[in-house]
Amino acid sequence: MPSNRPRGRRPGGANTRAEIVDAALRLFSTEGYDKVSLRQIAREADVDPALVHHYFENKAELFTLAVIAVPVEDPSEAVQRILEAPRDQLGERAVDVVMATFERPGAGQRFIALLRAAMNSGAPTNPLSEFLAREILAKVADAQGHPDAARRGQLAMMLFIGYVMARDIMAFPALVKQRRTEMVTQLGKAMQAFLVDPW
Amino acid sequence: MPSNRPRGRRPGGANTRAEIVDAALRLFSTEGYDKVSLRQIAREADVDPALVHHYFENKAELFTLAVIAVPVEDPSEAVQRILEAPRDQLGERAVDVVMATFERPGAGQRFIALLRAAMNSGAPTNPLSEFLAREILAKVADAQGHPDAARRGQLAMMLFIGYVMARDIMAFPALVKQRRTEMVTQLGKAMQAFLVDPW
Repeated sequence: MPSNRPRGRRPGGANTRAEIVDAALRLFSTEGYDKVSLRQIAREADVDPALVHHYFENKAELFTLAVIAVPVEDPSEAVQRILEAPRDQLGERAVDVVMATFERPGAGQRFIALLRAAMNSGAPTNPLSEFLAREILAKVADAQGHPDAARRGQLAMMLFIGYVMARDIMAFPALVKQRRTEMVTQLGKAMQAFLVDPW
Repeated sequence: MPSNRPRGRRPGGANTRAEIVDAALRLFSTEGYDKVSLRQIAREADVDPALVHHYFENKAELFTLAVIAVPVEDPSEAVQRILEAPRDQLGERAVDVVMATFERPGAGQRFIALLRAAMNSGAPTNPLSEFLAREILAKVADAQGHPDAARRGQLAMMLFIGYVMARDIMAFPALVKQRRTEMVTQLGKAMQAFLVDPW
């Protein structure tokens, strides 16, 4: 719809916040999480970058509101809750906390829809995977002093992708039947290897 | 094409072997690996079950010929090669041997096509995943005396599914750049947890 206003960045209005969220959703969906900046989102929403900062603390907060679209905890609080576990239980705690993200109403379906989109489109973006790998999992590895924390975060994330594929899409019988506490223990061992232990 | 022969099971002919392979491909593609029996394949191919046994040692051999369609090693030899590794290196060896399956010409693309089909169809069958989980990975866990070897095989398989998704479909940068030897070491740690270590 063409605007009657003269060209130029709009001042903040009643709908500005919602328009920023919409612009963020468009960009995250097409470009992924890592590549998109707050400045680009401001440009997409046709607002001053300062307004984006006025409404949103940072990219992670805007992402959780725009894409996950359910109230999720601040990722830095998730990291904190993981790091409170004893060192030999960090892997299990990370599985517990990240899996809780998929268990929120609608979140699991949304994650699967994103995997399906990645499968079928040429653009292999899954902003939720990038978000969890960077803002939670890599930060846990970084807190252990690992110089390759980014890679460790991506390896840890691929474990969740495989688990969701095998259980929810491919219906591996032993995973469908598995109790959550067992799942947390068993994936936790692999998570410990990816995030905590030396190679 | 209707046959001029009277109804009844056909004797073996020049094309019988190829027809059995075709019937197996149809059944594995629609039913998955685990549920299909040699008897069903004989019925689908309209031949006597003894003929299937005449041409093929077992279901695994028929599967590798029908579905993987490239000469792969006997899965029991793959298991043997894994089990020759020292106990603390079994995970790495399992990654090395199974990953070699995906590296054969055409096999990686075929695996991705099967994942995509599972994503998009209501029937979540990926016969290659079931095959590798049951005939190779679970057998390695079983050789360690684990009573839950079937589940461990499925957990191990989901690690490969996640890895292929994250690297080949979603292009996680750290995985795309990773050298094979590093990948074997790092996935090997998780594989060790799934196949070898106690929970």
